[in-house]
Amino acid sequence: MKLLFKATIVATMISPELYAQSDSLQFNKISDNIMLQGQCYNNLRVLCKTVGHRLSGTEAASKAVEWGFEALKKAGADTVWLQPVMVPKWHRGQEKLSLQLDNNKWITVPALSLGNTEGTNGKVLEAPIIMVQSFDELNALPDAQVKGKIVFFNYKMKQDFVNTFNAYGDAVKYRWASPNYAAPKGAVGVIIRSMSTGEDDYPHTGSMRYKDSVTKIPEMAIGNRTADKLYQYCLKHTASARIQSDAHMYTSLVPSYNVIGEIKGSKYPDRIITVGGHLDSWDVGEGAHDDGAGCVQSIEIIRTFKSLGMQPNYTIRAVLFMNEENGLKGGEAYADSAISKNEHHVLAIETDAGGFAPRGIGFEMGAGKKQQIKKYAPLFLPYGVYDFDQEEGGADISPLQRKMGIPVAGLLPESQRYFDVHHTPNDVFETVNHRELKLGAVALTQFIYLVSTHEIF
Amino acid sequence: MKLLFKATIVATMISPELYAQSDSLQFNKISDNIMLQGQCYNNLRVLCKTVGHRLSGTEAASKAVEWGFEALKKAGADTVWLQPVMVPKWHRGQEKLSLQLDNNKWITVPALSLGNTEGTNGKVLEAPIIMVQSFDELNALPDAQVKGKIVFFNYKMKQDFVNTFNAYGDAVKYRWASPNYAAPKGAVGVIIRSMSTGEDDYPHTGSMRYKDSVTKIPEMAIGNRTADKLYQYCLKHTASARIQSDAHMYTSLVPSYNVIGEIKGSKYPDRIITVGGHLDSWDVGEGAHDDGAGCVQSIEIIRTFKSLGMQPNYTIRAVLFMNEENGLKGGEAYADSAISKNEHHVLAIETDAGGFAPRGIGFEMGAGKKQQIKKYAPLFLPYGVYDFDQEEGGADISPLQRKMGIPVAGLLPESQRYFDVHHTPNDVFETVNHRELKLGAVALTQFIYLVSTHEIF
Repeated sequence: MKLLFKATIVATMISPELYAQSDSLQFNKISDNIMLQGQCYNNLRVLCKTVGHRLSGTEAASKAVEWGFEALKKAGADTVWLQPVMVPKWHRGQEKLSLQLDNNKWITVPALSLGNTEGTNGKVLEAPIIMVQSFDELNALPDAQVKGKIVFFNYKMKQDFVNTFNAYGDAVKYRWASPNYAAPKGAVGVIIRSMSTGEDDYPHTGSMRYKDSVTKIPEMAIGNRTADKLYQYCLKHTASARIQSDAHMYTSLVPSYNVIGEIKGSKYPDRIITVGGHLDSWDVGEGAHDDGAGCVQSIEIIRTFKSLGMQPNYTIRAVLFMNEENGLKGGEAYADSAISKNEHHVLAIETDAGGFAPRGIGFEMGAGKKQQIKKYAPLFLPYGVYDFDQEEGGADISPLQRKMGIPVAGLLPESQRYFDVHHTPNDVFETVNHRELKLGAVALTQFIYLVSTHEIF
Repeated sequence: MKLLFKATIVATMISPELYAQSDSLQFNKISDNIMLQGQCYNNLRVLCKTVGHRLSGTEAASKAVEWGFEALKKAGADTVWLQPVMVPKWHRGQEKLSLQLDNNKWITVPALSLGNTEGTNGKVLEAPIIMVQSFDELNALPDAQVKGKIVFFNYKMKQDFVNTFNAYGDAVKYRWASPNYAAPKGAVGVIIRSMSTGEDDYPHTGSMRYKDSVTKIPEMAIGNRTADKLYQYCLKHTASARIQSDAHMYTSLVPSYNVIGEIKGSKYPDRIITVGGHLDSWDVGEGAHDDGAGCVQSIEIIRTFKSLGMQPNYTIRAVLFMNEENGLKGGEAYADSAISKNEHHVLAIETDAGGFAPRGIGFEMGAGKKQQIKKYAPLFLPYGVYDFDQEEGGADISPLQRKMGIPVAGLLPESQRYFDVHHTPNDVFETVNHRELKLGAVALTQFIYLVSTHEIF
């Protein structure tokens, strides 16, 4: 009741010729259907609790593929299929980081190897620590001061950035590339401050990548509290570290799959809207927000169209991409297949920013299309979705964008809590709220309904 | 950097004569100060962990008053004082609810007496249950069918309402007034489904009130899972319940205090802006979201003005109201004092909707003032605050509004998680995110800065 009332109010804010009451009513039907009968939260529970974390190339990732296939069939997709992808296989194994600070005692601290890093082959690597705040500070040091040392990059995610993804964008180069700066100067290892907004001591893993030319020195992340302590100590003293890690990237790729479910468009079956999240996760936690949430929301869109008997004009494809975290092989394979089959993709949307309450949908596309979409913005207001001004796409759909020039979009959920749990053992089902997760699926379904009904692309 | 960039963008959306770059810069200073140096999260930790829950009239409530006094002084308020209030004293004591369902076994279920209810004086009250879905359904029953029974009101908070406060507003009459419908028909007790959006079994307490004319029969709340089970059973069988409860409202009021801290206005010291939350809580959990969050945000506003050397034109008063939960005596006393002293209140703002990320500020005031405020709305967008269209005030400031006609406003945080923890043992510090809490304080401080600087009231 209240919702319909609100939807009527906002209708007065847009021009009468644009306002279609049927859109507002359809938005309401979509919301009610998902909030009352939605399966995404139950699906997420099953994925998190029966599969758990699912790094590319693992047995768990294979189980996740099976789960995704069944879930898309159950959601009512016209067709469900597996798209082969060759993915890297990285193995964490045992790992340990010890620091020598006060009293010269060695203490083991919570730490995680960054994904794709090479460890110490199980041996103990001991070296003095040299602390820097930035790449610039490191570059300014004489090589002799760095040689044989473990570099501690103490760069913090900036708490004064309101959107935490902006803070992540600012800081993540220290996770991704630190060995590429440290190794050429003779460093033997790297410790980074985690990409974390948490006021806790959980280390966060995540992708790094060695340049071809550099020595593959190990990289480990520590939590904010340990980093604070290490920072204070390093201001006055020389700390040492012991890194012991089995981490290893296998040289051969292994077979895996993207999981794809489709509703055929009634009017333009050849025009495809892709919506997806990624099925793989890091090898800690349960990959609940990252990105179980995006997978179950994508599946929910299919379920909702079917449940409400909505026949889209365009074909809608829900894609559970494999290997977003440490290779993007699924996204590349999906785009390559589209090119080789000469598919007509009109739009791709990604949901990979957490299962929190949605605030907007961002776009990377021409200004004209953005303006066309923004005319419908008032319809979303009763659902708490107001922001259509950000540039946003997604990693998995970036190959479609890059290789085929497809317009892309991304769901923008509330960002404040995401980097507390991102890539940690805490990214578990219990941190996802069922209403927030469902509202994300509502916004995506409404948006796809609009695009397909008004043939915006 | 990114923030400033965004703030510049939004500036182009408002008329040049209105846009003051200084406002945008001041907004940014306020945000940076709170996000980097804010004390509200630390203050909340102390309140929750050293005082804990603090029902009016208890020893803990007295400790909370002392804490609030010291926290306001430390925040730098020019003056801090205690305002005497006489408050009710309600005691929960021991309580137990057992149900007889399958196999005729008695099982004890999670349950909480509603606040202000009278229990069974420690005795066991056993009676058959009669289930109804609504007051209308109860009213339609012959008295003979209700007499001697315990009425189970199975009214659910509606999950299809997007804003959970609307769902609460729709359902809360079943918590507040059920005995007033059941007792006149001869019922001996009431069980309600909790005011909960959670998919769990936590019972939620909260205020109820007996009409003067009715027999004071006990009222208890059960969690959603138990309610689902009881509902299913009652469709086919007759269940029974045993209520045992010490709950009791003492006849005499006891002394307590509102805690008030003030920064004197430089230009109009007699014009007062009140901003507040409530210091009391229910006697479960830690009153973290309800309403420790509002208290520490109100204190944070004082700290921020002082820290940034901002001298407001109007006097700003942070008020930690006593007894919002089960009497509103603090709000009444504050308004009565204002009347007796002939104070000139220009605006009152409440923050009592949880420490979640802010989405807007709502108003109950004349349309002209609302329009005046809304012209500044674009300044708030970079901070995720976009909604200035809702009607909102607050319980504690409602006497100011009712008795003196003062315009009121209320912070509107994200609402999805609030009724998972509201009035439960789960409303603890750990469920509050430090960035979300701080962003609420940012929005309030920015708003008060605007009102005071542009002398909007």
